[in-house]
Amino acid sequence: MTATRFTQPVPTLCRDRDSVLILDQTRLPWRCEQRRLSTLDDAAEAIRAMWVRGAPLIGGTAAYGVALALGGGDASDAALAHAHRCLAATRPTAVNLQWALARMLGRLQPLPPAARAEAAWAEAAAICADDDACCEAIGLHGLPLLQAIAERRGKVRVMTHCNAGWLATLGAGTALAPVYAAHLAGIAVEVWVSETRPRNQGLLTAWELSEAGVPHTLIADNAAGLLLMRGEVDIVITGADRIAANGDSANKVGTYLKALAARAADVPFYIAAPHSTLDFACADGAAIPIEDRGAAEVCRIRAAGADGEPVELQLAPDSTAAVNPAFDVTPAGLIAGIITERGIAPPNALHSLYPEAGS
Amino acid sequence: MTATRFTQPVPTLCRDRDSVLILDQTRLPWRCEQRRLSTLDDAAEAIRAMWVRGAPLIGGTAAYGVALALGGGDASDAALAHAHRCLAATRPTAVNLQWALARMLGRLQPLPPAARAEAAWAEAAAICADDDACCEAIGLHGLPLLQAIAERRGKVRVMTHCNAGWLATLGAGTALAPVYAAHLAGIAVEVWVSETRPRNQGLLTAWELSEAGVPHTLIADNAAGLLLMRGEVDIVITGADRIAANGDSANKVGTYLKALAARAADVPFYIAAPHSTLDFACADGAAIPIEDRGAAEVCRIRAAGADGEPVELQLAPDSTAAVNPAFDVTPAGLIAGIITERGIAPPNALHSLYPEAGS
Repeated sequence: MTATRFTQPVPTLCRDRDSVLILDQTRLPWRCEQRRLSTLDDAAEAIRAMWVRGAPLIGGTAAYGVALALGGGDASDAALAHAHRCLAATRPTAVNLQWALARMLGRLQPLPPAARAEAAWAEAAAICADDDACCEAIGLHGLPLLQAIAERRGKVRVMTHCNAGWLATLGAGTALAPVYAAHLAGIAVEVWVSETRPRNQGLLTAWELSEAGVPHTLIADNAAGLLLMRGEVDIVITGADRIAANGDSANKVGTYLKALAARAADVPFYIAAPHSTLDFACADGAAIPIEDRGAAEVCRIRAAGADGEPVELQLAPDSTAAVNPAFDVTPAGLIAGIITERGIAPPNALHSLYPEAGS
Repeated sequence: MTATRFTQPVPTLCRDRDSVLILDQTRLPWRCEQRRLSTLDDAAEAIRAMWVRGAPLIGGTAAYGVALALGGGDASDAALAHAHRCLAATRPTAVNLQWALARMLGRLQPLPPAARAEAAWAEAAAICADDDACCEAIGLHGLPLLQAIAERRGKVRVMTHCNAGWLATLGAGTALAPVYAAHLAGIAVEVWVSETRPRNQGLLTAWELSEAGVPHTLIADNAAGLLLMRGEVDIVITGADRIAANGDSANKVGTYLKALAARAADVPFYIAAPHSTLDFACADGAAIPIEDRGAAEVCRIRAAGADGEPVELQLAPDSTAAVNPAFDVTPAGLIAGIITERGIAPPNALHSLYPEAGS
């Protein structure tokens, strides 16, 4: 079976002359609307306010943010440093952001200022094309895992968490890339979609699977343990925001609970991520910074109002004390393998796929 | 230290002449309103629609439902059987419902029909008084656990799930009874309150702790794993809806995930429940019926509208496939102990506290 090439139905991000159009993910799944980013501040706000989210897409947006910053006429060292500082401060956990900015700096700093703006647009485009290619390769490397299960059972039931589909990337997605590859190859694949409170990115996953015609079932995050215990899940695949050198992986909060329940049920738990998510400078999970997004996201919820327009409502008074870590860390010991664009490695042997990173 | 007697600030259920007033928990935490139950059908609807919830309170409401059924003038065997059938069918998992109905039948069946209505009111009141006393005893038996931690650390941080406080019972609660006992005894106790999607009973817990002045912090269900891993939780205590003979315990869906994360973090996980939650006829967790409450609860959410009035909004289209098991089963092996009104037992030694139940 050969998988057909996946194409994003609506681009998550694309250049439009001297600006960038992004799909505003705070309006999804109710409204499918683009927003135009014209300045560095627009790009920083897009990441901070989560109009774009998903580790690889954050990286791509940051890269274009540098291009927007330099496109205004000032491409001096100071302007470059300011753009870097401003974008690097938007969100702490996804290392793809730092990786993309470092790559932009590495390309632009040696150039004379006059050549930087054009090179910035080109490098941002290259970063995005690289991510698209990574997604495709992750899909092809993950496909045999799903194929093997489907051959035994007639179908394969994948559980995921948050959104690590095409909406989170510049291509087919990370965790969902093998799902799309399987679907396109005619394998019967079904997806358990966790709501992913407090921001409900599971609704993005349900929406994109629905658009692609992949059968899926929405569940409250709390239901994952029972479904795994009952044998209703064949494999768990999630994305990641940062993978430490030892394989400990930070991903959307709640991922760790699924990994624990998968282990208890003897169901394999995989992480799917491109090289830009690997942080060999980070020894282990304890060194990964975990973003705290504040109480308001827990005390309020976004839903569809009477006219279908998204509205934000109170679940609890804003005076309620709430803690809202956006990520958690799944220890390497719970991870069966990490699916990258170079193949699948056990979490403690990532350096075998990336020997250039040292050990 | 001696704990003062806990009194419900608003009764969850009380007789009012020939009817029953209940606190409508679907309006909480936004509105604190009572509803009057005047008929058998009212009582059945109150349980089914979750105007009342929490295993012990469901039992008490069912008991009064029998009284309401017989109070109408027909207290024949057929009327009694009809009331039993009707109430028993409302919700499947909490065994307290079946227990209360069996106790009502045991008391009423031997009586001549003319004596049944009055006896039904009296027996329902006795069941509720029994639950109140159980809650108090659970609080006193659980108190030393919290006290010991507070003596070592200066305070005790309890994580709970769903609502197993006074709102779930006819007294001080089950899981929260030791918390209230500790608070009343002057121990510094803080509670991590899980939202408990899809019905957000955590908001009930936050509300009742707030009313009682107990410090607490709301979290998304997904955050429990990280908090446990970080060492921010000293003990986990939840209620239960049915405890099998081997100690496997059904409770609100998501409990199992917390028990797994507690085990991984070496934090003790306790269940608090009265005798009416024990089901020695049920060999193990696999025999416990798990209620499926349908897709709508996952696709919609109740929040406060602009005027503070509760409104129900769409999170996902009603056409979204969703699975919504309301409970999960925590294996006995993950449970440090079960706190009952007779003391604390390891889950596999419950019969030592209840020798009359056989082994």
